[in-house]
Amino acid sequence: MTEEQFIESLTSGWKTKNPKFVGVGDDCAVVRGEASGSSLLLKADAVVEGVHFLRTADPVLIGRKALARAISDIAAMGGTPLYALVTLGLPSGFQPVRIQKIYKGITALAKQWNIELLGGETTRTRDLVLSISLVGECSGYAPVLRSTAKEEEEIWVTGSLGNTQKLKHFTFEPRIKEGKWLAEKEMATSMIDLSDGLGIDLPRLARASGLSFELSLDLIPCAREATLKQAFQEGEDYELLFTVSPEKSALLKKFPFETAIQKIGVMKKKAFKVSESVKELLHGYDHLQKR
Amino acid sequence: MTEEQFIESLTSGWKTKNPKFVGVGDDCAVVRGEASGSSLLLKADAVVEGVHFLRTADPVLIGRKALARAISDIAAMGGTPLYALVTLGLPSGFQPVRIQKIYKGITALAKQWNIELLGGETTRTRDLVLSISLVGECSGYAPVLRSTAKEEEEIWVTGSLGNTQKLKHFTFEPRIKEGKWLAEKEMATSMIDLSDGLGIDLPRLARASGLSFELSLDLIPCAREATLKQAFQEGEDYELLFTVSPEKSALLKKFPFETAIQKIGVMKKKAFKVSESVKELLHGYDHLQKR
Repeated sequence: MTEEQFIESLTSGWKTKNPKFVGVGDDCAVVRGEASGSSLLLKADAVVEGVHFLRTADPVLIGRKALARAISDIAAMGGTPLYALVTLGLPSGFQPVRIQKIYKGITALAKQWNIELLGGETTRTRDLVLSISLVGECSGYAPVLRSTAKEEEEIWVTGSLGNTQKLKHFTFEPRIKEGKWLAEKEMATSMIDLSDGLGIDLPRLARASGLSFELSLDLIPCAREATLKQAFQEGEDYELLFTVSPEKSALLKKFPFETAIQKIGVMKKKAFKVSESVKELLHGYDHLQKR
Repeated sequence: MTEEQFIESLTSGWKTKNPKFVGVGDDCAVVRGEASGSSLLLKADAVVEGVHFLRTADPVLIGRKALARAISDIAAMGGTPLYALVTLGLPSGFQPVRIQKIYKGITALAKQWNIELLGGETTRTRDLVLSISLVGECSGYAPVLRSTAKEEEEIWVTGSLGNTQKLKHFTFEPRIKEGKWLAEKEMATSMIDLSDGLGIDLPRLARASGLSFELSLDLIPCAREATLKQAFQEGEDYELLFTVSPEKSALLKKFPFETAIQKIGVMKKKAFKVSESVKELLHGYDHLQKR
């Protein structure tokens, strides 16, 4: 059993009894109201010093990133972020000014996205930990899951991939508007955000949908100075990966944002064998094997 | 500035713009719907190895406690817990069996209270961290805040206080049913759960309500083998402290639970001077000054 399989096994018994809910295994949990067309999205995420950022990093950006990661998961459902709680794990001997700057980063990003910061807790830890609880919603339309891609649907991605440590792992803009548009217009049939990298997150979406995929490697939108390998394996792109039915994909020309979108492949039935050249690129970044 | 004041200062700018919401400063955040009589309660809480439990503790009880603490905060609003997310910070070299037992403890308590476990994340940390995001509700009645006690209202407490390290810090039953009854019947005018101890949490409630208090020390329900000092200062009682108007308190005779309840004092106007004998007992347990 790999470590990832072990961790998956911990929550494998957590099957929600409500068929309208989505539990373990998607970007967010989904709680649907009995009657209304509105869904509540729930996300919890933590960043840890030494794992997700270095002690020397700009504290404003550390705070920003902690919240932005969770927002990105709301974006991956097509939702709007609404309320956040922040749990701070504080090492002894902390520098007050640094902590204040971290909270400044959180507060500024929350303001930008109109998220209400409604509280949280503080506790002692050895390494600085920031744990975010974020509540979002899809109001009047359905959230987009990972598990609902269909055979022969096109695979698309926003923005560009790779070189994220240099370009944007601290400064990425969560794709909230883009995700909401894709969900509200019923364009995306499945969606995930690229936090671990295309090489991990695409197989994850395919597995959840019970499918395989075919990629056109020449179409992968590599970021400036990024190799194809980095575009697959570096992680922390926080772009959206989504599927679209071939009948609808022409409508993506009306995508009303500056953010680039690019078709990179097609979903295939489960038995489809991924090409060797793609397979080589699939071994992505696993945050649990880093330390 | 003390450390507690510093930490309070971090979130002091987080004022919710919605007058129907409750943000920083209560047991839970409260999000009220525009029309319905239903409120959503949001709670985030974390336990850390070496702070909240020792490495040698029974892992099933560690998991249980992580969730029970958050449930207790929902109880303190008079709410019902509904959905939880669990974020696990995993040290390298962890023992798989121990982690499985921790999840067993979480899962069993969630089942007992009919809480849906809807997911979470896993990350690397140096010390084991369990961070719980819990969503609850008050359906058809208002949540009970800390800040709404009035002068001359009676101060009551559930159960018994002190000797918690021996008796119940791992095994306490969150006072969900009791809290819900007190809220639904509009008995409690303010409420808080005793996590840091009467000596900290009563002043906290009084401060939030802009009041002072008078206690009858001979009425404090000390637990078996607990000194009065422990009853005030040990913390982790997870009992409910609540206020009741003198007109209504006779109705507490109909309190339909086995849990004992006891009147211990009266809320007084802010200028009221707490007696010296009480003041000596007020210096409670501060989890941030432990390490």
